[in-house]
Amino acid sequence: MADCLFPRMALIGIGLLGSSIALAARQHGVVEHIAIHTRSADTLARAQDLGLGDSYHQDIIACVREADLVIVCTPVGVCEAIAKSIADHLKDGAIVTDVGSVKGSIVKQMAPYLPEHVHFIPGHPIAGTENSGPDAGFAELFIGRWCILTPADSVDRDAVSRLQAFWEILGSNVELMDANHHDQVLAITSHLPHLIAYNIVGTASDLEMVRNSEVIKYSAGGFRDFTRLAASDPTMWRDVFLHNKEAALEMLGRFTEDLTALQRAIRWGDGDALFELFSRTRSIRRSIIDAGQEIEAPDFGRHINEAEGEAQKSQTRL
Amino acid sequence: MADCLFPRMALIGIGLLGSSIALAARQHGVVEHIAIHTRSADTLARAQDLGLGDSYHQDIIACVREADLVIVCTPVGVCEAIAKSIADHLKDGAIVTDVGSVKGSIVKQMAPYLPEHVHFIPGHPIAGTENSGPDAGFAELFIGRWCILTPADSVDRDAVSRLQAFWEILGSNVELMDANHHDQVLAITSHLPHLIAYNIVGTASDLEMVRNSEVIKYSAGGFRDFTRLAASDPTMWRDVFLHNKEAALEMLGRFTEDLTALQRAIRWGDGDALFELFSRTRSIRRSIIDAGQEIEAPDFGRHINEAEGEAQKSQTRL
Repeated sequence: MADCLFPRMALIGIGLLGSSIALAARQHGVVEHIAIHTRSADTLARAQDLGLGDSYHQDIIACVREADLVIVCTPVGVCEAIAKSIADHLKDGAIVTDVGSVKGSIVKQMAPYLPEHVHFIPGHPIAGTENSGPDAGFAELFIGRWCILTPADSVDRDAVSRLQAFWEILGSNVELMDANHHDQVLAITSHLPHLIAYNIVGTASDLEMVRNSEVIKYSAGGFRDFTRLAASDPTMWRDVFLHNKEAALEMLGRFTEDLTALQRAIRWGDGDALFELFSRTRSIRRSIIDAGQEIEAPDFGRHINEAEGEAQKSQTRL
Repeated sequence: MADCLFPRMALIGIGLLGSSIALAARQHGVVEHIAIHTRSADTLARAQDLGLGDSYHQDIIACVREADLVIVCTPVGVCEAIAKSIADHLKDGAIVTDVGSVKGSIVKQMAPYLPEHVHFIPGHPIAGTENSGPDAGFAELFIGRWCILTPADSVDRDAVSRLQAFWEILGSNVELMDANHHDQVLAITSHLPHLIAYNIVGTASDLEMVRNSEVIKYSAGGFRDFTRLAASDPTMWRDVFLHNKEAALEMLGRFTEDLTALQRAIRWGDGDALFELFSRTRSIRRSIIDAGQEIEAPDFGRHINEAEGEAQKSQTRL
């Protein structure tokens, strides 16, 4: 059990990220009181049923008042409205942070409204699953994952250190970065992959020459991998693309150029060009496994679970 | 233990698929003798060290002679050469099949050379991992997966039934299909996903504004999912695109059209269009899970393994 870093933590939004933070912060004892606000009365009631917090607030002001740490865990698109409504009710010296997948826009949306007497430190834990809502959270979500913080140069270093300590106790590695660089890095490591996944699943479901049932039956050929990202929260991802437009379009442009070259190689039967690309991409996975960001087992360890589940059926059949 | 269906099975090629077939066929007792041929002396020696077969042949003719079932487990591009070399040495009534990811081209490459007295039944088990070589095989690979057979109408139905029984005993569900339809179905469920995965990993590794080390560190944001398919065997996949060119280009054309529309929606800030697509793709994953082709656990069950591995490190740190 770590020392209490923040007597009162306010969570604005209680989806996958908010609920995971609540569970992890409680488990490690880094906060004493968890105050939860979310707009939906149903979601707030569900959070209460799950026992995620100590107090539950439909009123956002009541939630953040007296909080030492305020974490905004909503889709990126509502952060300006949140900053406006909480600005006049924040405690002296409070840290205000968030978990949004975009950082430049968060700064633009929130910084103009937040008072001088709070420490505004935008944040982004690179962690998640395809599930959403307060039931999706689990305390281990942040273990071994990176959390990027993008404080302005003027922000109090002691406040940054305390927020860094918070994420480290939850299991994360913390990195400080410029907000705009964050948005470029995430455009390639997260935003473009989601866009591509959504797109291919859309293309497959629109086909007329191949039935949807066939796409589903034979999805183990590779397609099913993409359906995980394409099952992510639609509101969250709409907001990411509306709020990181420039970097997303830049990465998409590069992807499309490369894909056009690959298309040409297929059309002209250029086996050497195909082989060259298909060979050099192999080592990147190895690097990701070595960096502790992917498991070693083949097929994401998935076939082990599948085989266990199916082995019984198979034995029954024989 | 099932009855022996084929006294002698010849495997041409002993990579992930060949070795998995050897292990599964042995486990279930559906063959008595497993004869293995591969071109590389090193790979053949490795197969022997692993005890995958009963006899090992550098001479392909010695391997297939007297075989009741011949399974070609090589990249698609060498199947014509294999058909030519084995044609005059096949046993009367033998079944000749393969495991290639393309079927139209296999028919064109092999059918003209195979004699009337054998049953030629092209096949494709929709199963695999990103690993390759004889060490990558495991007996459970086919459990719960589909295996597609594409025999011509003229092929003996009893032979088809026997090959179907073979795959069912290995744990697969078998479907009969026209070879050209197979190539369209697999173009969307397998070939396009691999192409897209190879492409995005290539785009990411060529960036200059974002360092490769950053791509690796922050890959848990989504990118790492693609690196699995992009770590697949380069020779196999080169041959797939050279031999299923028309269907792959067709699906790629549709994908690119859809992606261009999505790009326009991002540029013009059309949140409704983004939300609509991101919502309707969600249900497909549910259908794949319900069809038994994907595991239920979030994140491919991956975070469970990760958390277990990392929990200890985390406890040590605190």
